[in-house]
Amino acid sequence: MKILNLLCFVQILLNHHAVFFIGTGENMSVFILLNCKTYDEGTGENAVKLAKACREVAESAGVEIAIAPQIPDIYRVARAVDIPVYAQHVDGAGPGSHTGKIYAKAIKEAGAAGSLINHSERRLTLADIESSVTALKENKMMSVICTNNVATTAAAAAFNPTYVAIEPPALIGSGVPVSKADPDIITNSVDAAVLVNPNIKVLCGAGISQGEDLKAAVELGAKGVLLASGIVKADDPKNALYDLVSLI
Amino acid sequence: MKILNLLCFVQILLNHHAVFFIGTGENMSVFILLNCKTYDEGTGENAVKLAKACREVAESAGVEIAIAPQIPDIYRVARAVDIPVYAQHVDGAGPGSHTGKIYAKAIKEAGAAGSLINHSERRLTLADIESSVTALKENKMMSVICTNNVATTAAAAAFNPTYVAIEPPALIGSGVPVSKADPDIITNSVDAAVLVNPNIKVLCGAGISQGEDLKAAVELGAKGVLLASGIVKADDPKNALYDLVSLI
Amino acid sequence: MKILNLLCFVQILLNHHAVFFIGTGENMSVFILLNCKTYDEGTGENAVKLAKACREVAESAGVEIAIAPQIPDIYRVARAVDIPVYAQHVDGAGPGSHTGKIYAKAIKEAGAAGSLINHSERRLTLADIESSVTALKENKMMSVICTNNVATTAAAAAFNPTYVAIEPPALIGSGVPVSKADPDIITNSVDAAVLVNPNIKVLCGAGISQGEDLKAAVELGAKGVLLASGIVKADDPKNALYDLVSLI
Amino acid sequence: MKILNLLCFVQILLNHHAVFFIGTGENMSVFILLNCKTYDEGTGENAVKLAKACREVAESAGVEIAIAPQIPDIYRVARAVDIPVYAQHVDGAGPGSHTGKIYAKAIKEAGAAGSLINHSERRLTLADIESSVTALKENKMMSVICTNNVATTAAAAAFNPTYVAIEPPALIGSGVPVSKADPDIITNSVDAAVLVNPNIKVLCGAGISQGEDLKAAVELGAKGVLLASGIVKADDPKNALYDLVSLI
Repeated sequence: MKILNLLCFVQILLNHHAVFFIGTGENMSVFILLNCKTYDEGTGENAVKLAKACREVAESAGVEIAIAPQIPDIYRVARAVDIPVYAQHVDGAGPGSHTGKIYAKAIKEAGAAGSLINHSERRLTLADIESSVTALKENKMMSVICTNNVATTAAAAAFNPTYVAIEPPALIGSGVPVSKADPDIITNSVDAAVLVNPNIKVLCGAGISQGEDLKAAVELGAKGVLLASGIVKADDPKNALYDLVSLI
Repeated sequence: MKILNLLCFVQILLNHHAVFFIGTGENMSVFILLNCKTYDEGTGENAVKLAKACREVAESAGVEIAIAPQIPDIYRVARAVDIPVYAQHVDGAGPGSHTGKIYAKAIKEAGAAGSLINHSERRLTLADIESSVTALKENKMMSVICTNNVATTAAAAAFNPTYVAIEPPALIGSGVPVSKADPDIITNSVDAAVLVNPNIKVLCGAGISQGEDLKAAVELGAKGVLLASGIVKADDPKNALYDLVSLI
Repeated sequence: MKILNLLCFVQILLNHHAVFFIGTGENMSVFILLNCKTYDEGTGENAVKLAKACREVAESAGVEIAIAPQIPDIYRVARAVDIPVYAQHVDGAGPGSHTGKIYAKAIKEAGAAGSLINHSERRLTLADIESSVTALKENKMMSVICTNNVATTAAAAAFNPTYVAIEPPALIGSGVPVSKADPDIITNSVDAAVLVNPNIKVLCGAGISQGEDLKAAVELGAKGVLLASGIVKADDPKNALYDLVSLI
Repeated sequence: MKILNLLCFVQILLNHHAVFFIGTGENMSVFILLNCKTYDEGTGENAVKLAKACREVAESAGVEIAIAPQIPDIYRVARAVDIPVYAQHVDGAGPGSHTGKIYAKAIKEAGAAGSLINHSERRLTLADIESSVTALKENKMMSVICTNNVATTAAAAAFNPTYVAIEPPALIGSGVPVSKADPDIITNSVDAAVLVNPNIKVLCGAGISQGEDLKAAVELGAKGVLLASGIVKADDPKNALYDLVSLI
């Protein structure tokens, strides 16, 4: 038991160091994931254009930017750019009689590096979240479980995904950044998630589009952000991305 | 009541004429839709190979064969062949905040000509079936609503999709063709659907893989078949397809 | 095509006769169903009080009023009044391993006479709607399938439930009666449903609370109404019910 | 941070003591929850009879036995017995426009002391599990979250429900007790859950019906069991219950 306790102590220590390091602005560790949803501005060839803008800004600013186009667009986006491409959803289904399900192996073969799971616009059961994370891990892919509050963030951390992304539903698409509207939800989510899984990395989303939003999120303990309309529907998405990364 | 009887009589008359015409073996009107599900044999490049086999047989035999690969594979399959490519599922979502949803316009831009809707492995609500059919129609795409029994076939016919496909769930993947196990379900589904919508075309699925299964289905009033494992997992899918169309 | 036109004409004729008869104000045939939802004003003993108010008004005005309390309240409401008690939802599940499902036989034994199915707040798949209607019929219970537009009303009519209730989702709880906001949706739903099933009876809901709303609905071809907050949350529900039936 | 760590240590300590105490056979702390599902043998008056058998055995053997009848039966079962009555499902919905949802306050008023959540036959999304637990807590009710494997048990523990009940789906209704078929899943679930939440109590279910099954479950670290067909469908449920508790 003492060993277990020691372990606990070390993990908490490590975690707090990690938070400390992030706060220094070492921007290489910030992760930005752009969700194209079903916006026409992010469909088909428009998704390819957005992906190219992401790639340019990522390289220029030295940050990691990934894009999540619609599932039918993964293949052509992945062939056009070398930044990570994520699916917006994946099922835990294996090979077999699963018509219409999004099979992890299929999105991997199409070029995806990972997937969102349980986005507020595509909620899954607890059992299905677990099987989706497992399917991604089996295919050596990244997993981002989306959650809606502190308690669900902690629960999702138990699955040990690559990231948990907290997005208060009321703020999604609102233009009001979560880092302003409810900064406590970020710090509390990070704290609760780390108690469950000291290695977990928390992203935050909802309403984020500008440089100060990203900076605030990172200062509150997030390892990065999930964003959508603020960039995808911007008049000039590339400039919007440059602004986003300008303060880190 | 007499007027109602007359009505019924007229509709049955119309229906039986239709059945009669179909029974003549005019094979150009038979529609075969191959569902790749999430079989590994139908994923990624394997889907492209299957699509090429479908194309060869369709041209050689003068029948219409379409393929429904997984959604991430639509783009590359559609670029590789000129037969109709179907999605295995589509949502009724429009442009907007619909992460993970399958947007009709996106699958159209990826090259799909139509979509399955409400497959037994991806059931939808009544309202969502209607919005999916509507989304396909708005994009001038084909729609195949899957159903499980006579009553749901009649209900689906009310949406006036391109096809309704009756697939008794117990027979899916069974290897026992519906045309043998339960021929009445085909004739009764056709009769019930035509009473609701005299122009509706009914497909049948479940357990179909051989020439005699297709022939029997057409003789029972179906305009074609939906099939999957019998071809996708065959040792030689192309030969299996040639056998399938050999008796029409 | 001429035969089809004749067919259409005959059906429209039949339908309009029906509408005509209804329009005469023969109020015994008007059906009012009060949905308690999860309003506190309609929970537990409050549901019993509401049911007693319904009973008094029904008897006094000579109209048929039924109440749909929450499922845990069916038993005590049914013991307190002799008006029909409806469940707000029922599943098609039979006896067996169906934890948490609402079993038709159980609500019947608890005293229910029927059930809502597929309410906009509790949508079901097409297959489940069919099995729910079938389960109710097997238990000799009434079925009210809720729908959201003209096309789904027609589809639901194919299941031959006791009633189809068209409720445009945007108007539910709005206080704006569907009979004012969108009268065409009622007439068009009735017309489309009757083409599918000449015997079907259409109710309408959404925003209805006053005498003129009910009158307008009946004049547009509805056989009755579904209503909720306008009565349940009224300062004096009994008076609100008296007002509701005052013009028929 | 030191305080946090100390807390961690104390919780782990407490937990291990607790496990130790349970292992001694202090049967008052064993919790047995009988799920009536939709078995005819557990519907309506049959549920009342079963509840009375549970009550007699609980009192006679000095163990805690609760019953989960169908939702329409909660009221009459709760009036007939003074053992805890559970719902088989509850939603997180508050008061309002939530037709067909199971409102925590309504089942409480009907007499329920708690509820199952996320049973394998009634799966919920992660967000809905959280809101259901919260709704029960707000009403001072007990919560039993059902899970399917080690990872989901750990995740559910993060919500701090009264119990998490691990039930491997393949064993439900199998007659093969989980304690024999897969004892590791119990110990691993307990270990994983306790790491997330040192205070969590784990039940186990699936295939349990006899005294040795319960004894084995408790020895493996479970605080009790969830069971159904083995008792509900027994020729003599009361005797089956006496047998169940005979070894603790």
